[in-house]
Order: sequence, then C-alpha cells, then structure tokens
Amino acid sequence: MIDPAFSASKHLKPGERPGLTVELGALHPLRLDGGAELGPFTMAYQTYGTLNAARSNAVLVCHALTGDQFCAGDNPFTGKGGWWDKMIGPGKPLDPARYFIICSNVLGSCYGTTGPSDINPATGEPWGLTFPVITIRDMVRAQAMLVDHLNIETLFCVIGGSMGGMQVLEWAATYPERIFTAIPIATTSKHSAQNIAFHEVGRQAVMADPNWRGGAYLQEGVVPQAGLAVARMAAHITYMSESGLTRRFGRSLQDRDALAYGFDAEFQIESYLRHQGTSFVDRFDANSYLYITRAMDYFDLAADHGGLLAKAFAHSVARYCVMSFTSDWLYPTSDSRAIVHALNAVAAPVSFVEIDVDKGHDSFLLDVPEMFTILRGFLESAARQRGL
Amino acid sequence: MIDPAFSASKHLKPGERPGLTVELGALHPLRLDGGAELGPFTMAYQTYGTLNAARSNAVLVCHALTGDQFCAGDNPFTGKGGWWDKMIGPGKPLDPARYFIICSNVLGSCYGTTGPSDINPATGEPWGLTFPVITIRDMVRAQAMLVDHLNIETLFCVIGGSMGGMQVLEWAATYPERIFTAIPIATTSKHSAQNIAFHEVGRQAVMADPNWRGGAYLQEGVVPQAGLAVARMAAHITYMSESGLTRRFGRSLQDRDALAYGFDAEFQIESYLRHQGTSFVDRFDANSYLYITRAMDYFDLAADHGGLLAKAFAHSVARYCVMSFTSDWLYPTSDSRAIVHALNAVAAPVSFVEIDVDKGHDSFLLDVPEMFTILRGFLESAARQRGL
Repeated sequence: MIDPAFSASKHLKPGERPGLTVELGALHPLRLDGGAELGPFTMAYQTYGTLNAARSNAVLVCHALTGDQFCAGDNPFTGKGGWWDKMIGPGKPLDPARYFIICSNVLGSCYGTTGPSDINPATGEPWGLTFPVITIRDMVRAQAMLVDHLNIETLFCVIGGSMGGMQVLEWAATYPERIFTAIPIATTSKHSAQNIAFHEVGRQAVMADPNWRGGAYLQEGVVPQAGLAVARMAAHITYMSESGLTRRFGRSLQDRDALAYGFDAEFQIESYLRHQGTSFVDRFDANSYLYITRAMDYFDLAADHGGLLAKAFAHSVARYCVMSFTSDWLYPTSDSRAIVHALNAVAAPVSFVEIDVDKGHDSFLLDVPEMFTILRGFLESAARQRGL
Repeated sequence: MIDPAFSASKHLKPGERPGLTVELGALHPLRLDGGAELGPFTMAYQTYGTLNAARSNAVLVCHALTGDQFCAGDNPFTGKGGWWDKMIGPGKPLDPARYFIICSNVLGSCYGTTGPSDINPATGEPWGLTFPVITIRDMVRAQAMLVDHLNIETLFCVIGGSMGGMQVLEWAATYPERIFTAIPIATTSKHSAQNIAFHEVGRQAVMADPNWRGGAYLQEGVVPQAGLAVARMAAHITYMSESGLTRRFGRSLQDRDALAYGFDAEFQIESYLRHQGTSFVDRFDANSYLYITRAMDYFDLAADHGGLLAKAFAHSVARYCVMSFTSDWLYPTSDSRAIVHALNAVAAPVSFVEIDVDKGHDSFLLDVPEMFTILRGFLESAARQRGL
C-alpha cells in the first residue's frame, strides 16, 4: 500500500512506513459510527519497553490532531526526537524500564495507519473523500483491536493531551473494564461551537485551495499547500495563549528596526506563524486534516450517553488524573471541571490539577516541570497499587 | 473615478458613489506615516442633522474595519439600515435634531473614500498593492482634512468602537485641542501579538487565493472570493465570545436530526460562519481588507509617543468615556483599563464602564441597552457643559 502523502517528506520515500504495522479487521471489520465497515486496515504503532509476564504494565499513549506514533526516541517523520520525549524515556515519568508503552497513529491520519491518503483497495486509487468519516470512538475501537492483537486485556494507563485526552475519555466510556488509570490532559468532553468554528475555518481554507481538487489532489499530483498552511496558522493561534504570545513575540519586528510599511512579515509573530504554516504542509496530509478535525468536532461524550456525561463513566473502575492549564482557552479548565464533576457523580477516584502556566493549550507538549512532577507521582502511586 | 470593487454589489453599479464626496489634498497632499504623499484623494462621508451657528455640535462617528459612512438611515451598500441605527437617530443618544453627525469612510476602504480598488490617476490602473500602506493616524489626518473642509474647528465628540475607537484615541493624541469629548469603545491602544496573528491569517488566506493575482485582480477581472471569505470567517470568530457562540449555536445541527458523517455544514455554527464569509465578499474589497488590517496591526499609540501611553494624552483637554465589554476577548477590558490608567496619569476627566454582556467584541454594534443608557447620560452631561 503506497502512501503518496509522504512524498513531500525529507525523511521518507513514497511507500515507506517506518516502524511497526499490523493489518487489522480482515476477518472482523471495524464497524464505524457512520455505518461503514473498514477492513482490513493498517495500524501503525510503536512500542517502548517490555510487556511483563502478567501483561499488566501496558500504557497506551494517545496523540493529538497532527501527532504520530513516535512519541519517544527518534522520529523518522520529523528527523527530530519524539513528540513526548520529556514524558517518556529512561528516568522520565513513563520509563520504558517499568512500562510497556504503546503509541499508535490514529485512524484517518497519514503516518502509516489507514487514512484518506491511502489507496482504497476496491478502486486502486487514493481514498480521498471516499474514505469514511470517522469519530474519536472509531479511533479508539481501532486502538482496542491493536491492544487485542498485542494480547493485552487491561491497560495500566491510557494517557493523552488534547485529542489524545478525548481518546482517553472515550476509552473510559467504551472499555471501562480495560483500563486501570486514565489521564486526560488539556481536553474536553465535547467540542464547543467555538471549537467547531475554528476547525471549520481550517477546513474551508483547505477546500478553498484550487489544488485540493475536491479531495482528489493525490491523483492529480498536486497538494493544497496554501490552504493547509492557512488552516494550520489559524489553529496554531488557538494552541497558544494571548499572554504567551505577548511574552514571546509582543510587537517585536522581524529583522528590522523600523516599520517597512508593506505586506512582508513585519512582526516576528507573522514570521513565526508563516513558518508554522509552511512547515506543516511538509508533514501532514490535507484530507487527514479534514477527517481528524471532523472527528474532533463530532466528539460529544455526553450526547453518546443519553445527554448525561456521568452516564459515560457509569461503569468506570479506573483511577483518574484530570489535568488542565490556566492559559488554555481552547479547552479551558471549565471543560476539565465538567469531566471531574461527572466522575464525582459516579464516585470515581479522581485527582484534578489545574497548572498555572502561560503557554496555552500546547503546554502538555512543552517543558512544564509541575506537570511531569504530578504525573510522576500519580503514576508511581497507581503502579504500586497495580503491583508494578 | 470608477470603483470596480463595487461591481459585485447588488445595490450599486460600477462608478456609483452614493452620498457625499469631497476631493481633498489637491493643494496640500496628505503626507502619510509611511512617507508617501496622497493627493488629491476622495473622501466619502455622510452627515445627519444640522451644524449650529456656533459650529459647536459636530460629532464624528468613526467606523470599524469593514464599516462605512452610512451609520444611520438607509445604507445603499447593504440595502439595510445604518450600521449604528440603534445609536443614531431621532430619540437616540446621538439625535440629529441636536447634533451634526459626520461619518466618513476611512482612507483605504472601498465605500467611496480612496483606497486600493480605486484608479491610480498616475497609471490609469487600479492601485492594487501600489497604493501606499496607511496607518490609523493617516486615516485620522484625512478625517481632520474633512473636518477642516466643513469649516469645523472643534468636534463636540469623536466616538467609535473597535478600529473606530483607535481613531478616537488617535484624535485625542494628534488633535487634542479639537475634541470636546472622546468615546473609545471596545478598543485598544495597541494591537497585541494575538491581534496581529489573527489578521495575518486573514491576509495569508487572501494572498493564498490564486485569484488575488498579487493584488492585481481587478485588472484581470477576477475576485479572490474564497480567500477573503476564509479571512472573514477567522476574524468573525474573534468578534463573538465563546459563551455567546454556545448560547446561540451550541452543537445544534443544521437542518437535520442526526449527524450526516460528511463535510457539508453539519452544525449551525458552520453554516453561520460560511454565510458570514460568502456574504462578506459581496460587499468588501480584498485589498482594502489587507490595507486596513495592516493599519490596525501598526497601531501602537504609546510607541508613537516615546513608549509611554500617557504621553499620547499629554495635551488632552477632552472628557472621556471609555467602554469595554466583559466577553470581548479581542480587545479585552484590560486594554481599556490601560487607556484609563494613561488618562488618569495626565489627570484627564474619564468615565470608565465595563458592561457585563456575553455578546463579545461586536457588542458595540448590537442591542445592548446598558451601553445606550450610559452613552446617552454621558453625552447629555457633556452637551450641557458645551451649552448645546
């Protein structure tokens, strides 16, 4: 199965799929929320550490919108380190010497797991917009199939930030008996109108690019780079806080002492944003961006459980650590508090921490020492309870 | 002078310029902050009411980014009422029976005042990107030339919201002796990194549209509609509050009972945003959008006065009413407070009101009774002091 989306990468050639993959759903296809069946499909994943004899030390790390399975160590897509190297590694809160850490690329993405940039075996052409629309629950069902494949009954921990946190919540709702601890970070139980609005701007930016070609750009050998870059720029603003942007960039000028009175990047923030946009198109597929943002917009855990969020956790047996950041205006602390209230309503054991930091939503990916200290303590305590 | 930007309007034909216009700067061109000189140029404006014999009852209403000079009564551009009909009219806080109300289209806009969609007399072609980059101060200098033309020495009041408020502040700084009262609403004394970031996304969306043609789209008979629509969508989110969007749209579906699992507008907020985008391109010129957002990004009143905002108001003799809205996250109350602190530092008489409303930045354009009550009271008091 070739993967044309990777052709722009400096680090991989078309058809290359680094790391581990498994074909799932050949016998029993994945039945999607939208009604379609998918199978067989490829799941790309990485593991770190060793599964113990009791098969009780597995940790599933769930990535965010544009993340990948290389959460630690070398990342062949970026040529840099793993996206959560500060969290995972020797001596880190998630130490491979103690845990068997699994991270899989989500369904619909473009880093090896089947998504719209892959070839539809029925047609021999890239799926494009004929790929079925997916949900967060579909992503989690696919992850559960991977966990089954690895012959793991219960995960010691499911952890993730942002969309990764949505997957954590969905695991708690859909497979309550299969998780020992759940750590949703900087996330929400449902996408708000404002959340949907920002995603819709991004989708419209992609679709407005003539090179999008109704989603069939891979067949036509073009890439909607300009539209995808604009989408990323708009989204990126929501990942940072107003105060963080002011602290980091303020009104500083880019490479000049005085205003140039033109439309080149005058301010550093403009140059930074443009870089965020242009570098993103080298590493992400435009249709995957449409599908995954759609899945996030659909996410409404309460609606899936009779309108009451507590019902989603009715069968929960896990210990929770819910974490938010004061400066996260994408999924503000009030969203985390709603999750905590629902967990309280079913008497689930839950720790709730709001960390005071000005780095905005993306804090979970950054060097926020208090976050690592707290997660280390929570995991340590749970590991003792689990006999690890 | 023809104005091709109007060709898309349902209400006006190319070359039509409704209302009043005046040619300014023929003898003494407007020297712009960027160094260029502009003149002659056209200023389009409307007036409401009658100038009294003492020429002391003139009110200058300053419009926001995409506003126009038709602040009250019939608006020939939109076919609707004036954009501030709730504020201006018989029995309203600004009653034409008492005041001589002036509203001019800002320099760089597309509703009759000279801007990039007009013909550059030197070339016979639309200015496009050869139009000089302008600042808020340039807009205000042009307004002062109009006020001179009307033979008015001192304005009873300068009032405006958002970019209109920036013009109010600039009047206070540049022509302190020419204003009796100043009412900056929902505004800021400088554009923050986040403010600039959102505008840059919009500009990049316009420039990414192949129909933008490096700014020369009018010569080529096309319009960068898709890019401009995306720009408007992104900006529009910043004009509303998260809670306001939730109250008005929440996660309500558009014309259906269940999710369709596709990329059409599923949620009402998506449909609403798309409408905001597509209707905007019928009434606004893409290059004007670039120029005016640029002017706003450049706005930093303190920087123009040695880095100290109070110095901008050092010669102020006006009475101020500064107003903000609790849910305005574009120019939050802290921005207004900074203005008030600077005015306090020069002992200027200032009333400061923060209105508790969930409608976000655009509250100044909406039906917010408390706002009108307060403005009525402030104006009434000032009018008595002025002997009106």
